Amino acid sequence: MLHNTKDSMLRARAAKVVPGGMWGHQNAANLPEGYPQFFASGSGCRVRDVDGNEYIDFMCSWGPVVLGHHHPEVEAAAARQAAMGDCQNGPSEAMVELAELLVDTIPHADWVQFQKNGTDATTMAVVFARAGTGRRKVLVATGAYHGAVPWTSPSLSGVTAEDRAHVDHYAFNDIASLEAAVDRHQGDLAAILVSAFKHDAGFDQEMPTHAFARRARELCDATGAALIIDDVRAGFRLHIGGSWEEYGVRPDLAAWSKSIANGHPLAAITGNDRFRAHVSKTFSTGSFWTAAVPMAAGVATVTALRRDDGIGHMRAMGERFRAGFAALSDKYGVPIRQTGPVQMPLVLFEDDADLAKAHIFCSTALRAGAYFHPKHNMFLSVAHTAADIDAALVAAEAGFAAVARG
Amino acid sequence: MLHNTKDSMLRARAAKVVPGGMWGHQNAANLPEGYPQFFASGSGCRVRDVDGNEYIDFMCSWGPVVLGHHHPEVEAAAARQAAMGDCQNGPSEAMVELAELLVDTIPHADWVQFQKNGTDATTMAVVFARAGTGRRKVLVATGAYHGAVPWTSPSLSGVTAEDRAHVDHYAFNDIASLEAAVDRHQGDLAAILVSAFKHDAGFDQEMPTHAFARRARELCDATGAALIIDDVRAGFRLHIGGSWEEYGVRPDLAAWSKSIANGHPLAAITGNDRFRAHVSKTFSTGSFWTAAVPMAAGVATVTALRRDDGIGHMRAMGERFRAGFAALSDKYGVPIRQTGPVQMPLVLFEDDADLAKAHIFCSTALRAGAYFHPKHNMFLSVAHTAADIDAALVAAEAGFAAVARG
Repeated sequence: MLHNTKDSMLRARAAKVVPGGMWGHQNAANLPEGYPQFFASGSGCRVRDVDGNEYIDFMCSWGPVVLGHHHPEVEAAAARQAAMGDCQNGPSEAMVELAELLVDTIPHADWVQFQKNGTDATTMAVVFARAGTGRRKVLVATGAYHGAVPWTSPSLSGVTAEDRAHVDHYAFNDIASLEAAVDRHQGDLAAILVSAFKHDAGFDQEMPTHAFARRARELCDATGAALIIDDVRAGFRLHIGGSWEEYGVRPDLAAWSKSIANGHPLAAITGNDRFRAHVSKTFSTGSFWTAAVPMAAGVATVTALRRDDGIGHMRAMGERFRAGFAALSDKYGVPIRQTGPVQMPLVLFEDDADLAKAHIFCSTALRAGAYFHPKHNMFLSVAHTAADIDAALVAAEAGFAAVARG
Repeated sequence: MLHNTKDSMLRARAAKVVPGGMWGHQNAANLPEGYPQFFASGSGCRVRDVDGNEYIDFMCSWGPVVLGHHHPEVEAAAARQAAMGDCQNGPSEAMVELAELLVDTIPHADWVQFQKNGTDATTMAVVFARAGTGRRKVLVATGAYHGAVPWTSPSLSGVTAEDRAHVDHYAFNDIASLEAAVDRHQGDLAAILVSAFKHDAGFDQEMPTHAFARRARELCDATGAALIIDDVRAGFRLHIGGSWEEYGVRPDLAAWSKSIANGHPLAAITGNDRFRAHVSKTFSTGSFWTAAVPMAAGVATVTALRRDDGIGHMRAMGERFRAGFAALSDKYGVPIRQTGPVQMPLVLFEDDADLAKAHIFCSTALRAGAYFHPKHNMFLSVAHTAADIDAALVAAEAGFAAVARG
């Protein structure tokens, strides 16, 4: 068993002063038995909980850590900036440098505006689409996650019908359903909002088909609606220039966050010149949105990703991970489904509707030193080496053996 | 004249890659002639722009910097935490410490939940009020700022009517208008949302009357609605336990941000036990909300404010500031109005609807080394000493003299 004395103590203290002890996606109550709630430190692809247990990490802080925890170049850039100024009366030179770097890196981007949360970026992208088109309706894929605020939250608690009055749905990769949704809102369609790929927790992941991506663009061109790609989760892991670059499809607006500054808090909207004037006329702001430290961290992060082909490395490590899991699945006669991009692995067990197998697998692998997730896509980082993947596969083998034993 | 070579160059670069060159409340296009857009560093109550001009600062990064820029204790705590972990797979021990400290500091608070933006806190406080009451209507004061998202943005660009379908208005400090608004929504009133005091930019500030504060509480008690105080701007400057403590009026929910961690990005909702279960059942989250560095900075900030009676110091310095401005106004025969709490000064000139006097005053004082604001409330910090106030009054005198010259 893992030591968890301090984690248990902190959970008891948190239960008194935080509703439910913890909120949201990081609530360990939703994780398999044995998973720690509280973390102490991280370095490279390894994380350490408050009791000193160390794991090879496959969540990367749920995405932000794309170069690895406590990346030396990023932290040095952040520390240099912190020694000067962070949250000031206005932005810093680093904001301009990052904006220029993103415009240089992302082909559809004529401009950038920064925020803090991914949800800030998706929410304001929709506002900008409405401002730019003078229309109201936004189409989103059924089941897609775009943030936890009333217009799009997966939870209906505290949400009113009016919060979603102008949101309608299509099925991801289903061209006919997208066309039907567009038809329903002739003349009032502001935007088609689409995730970089289908990554709804608990479901097989699904890359967009070329035909679907192209048709989404065509429908926006035909109707004048904005194509918005939510690249918050996938951004800078699939393609450095935006996740649909490989399909030759460019959005009008895109939402970014998570990995943009390797864990420093930052989000961004990129867009094309069609929307520039409307963005500058729409008031949008937050107290910490121009803070300089995340901007400096962002410059270091994107620079390193480009220079070192970080995405190519993550893809290679993801293929090693996927092949290893497939081999273990065969060896132990435990069928699994691996879907989506290899650098954002999702492993689901066959005949596992209640996730019992996934929980046995994860709890066992955790004790063997690998931090996997039972139903949410995982994340690789540039810090994962072949040796790290192989070490994690040893832990995974313990998990498969446990599932095979039942 | 101030040097502005680098600022001008950065503005030209930013104009290409950021819509309008800059967005939101920090856009220097809204400030008097000569104000810099880009900042390099800050220390104590002094800030330096990218051209090396130094100013005694009365904006404190628009509120967050409550102890002074680059406060040694806060930055040391932040650096210690950063050396371990910041954005991780879950929260840190520092989150529990800060939650406990806030519950200990804020009498109405039985619990805390953390976010990033002040707007996250106001938005989710409304969601929690709706979740807890099962009702929809929220009353806000006409003209009050609670964030820049569709349900409450001061800008209507990209906003639909439905975004505000359940928001109704009352006039701040007008009991009859509040009662009438409550009457309009019998049985469907989820919350009365009220700023700590009236601090609408460009208008005289107004503290709540005791009678208004008490009546807001009574109306919530009578109807079962939640009383939500938006303490994002005033929090930790008026009263360490929440801005309405001195009226003996406690909210059910309060929104905090800005000064909670002396510039590190953090927001919080505090609440009482009536809403605890509803909060824990409502999904709310953000990628960076449990990041450990701002939590450690928050512990250091609130600890220092309590230990050193930071609010008492800011009040004393604010009185010195206000008396000095009053004396200069008399000396130069230039009538002004000074309103609101002294530690958040607002100075408006009589007969100055177009802010021409305010702009002459500010531009002149800026050249003399003080960074004032022409129409938004300003902020004092614990770092302002009597000597700093007196030095700023010398700059202010240059401004008054310029206004008197016309």
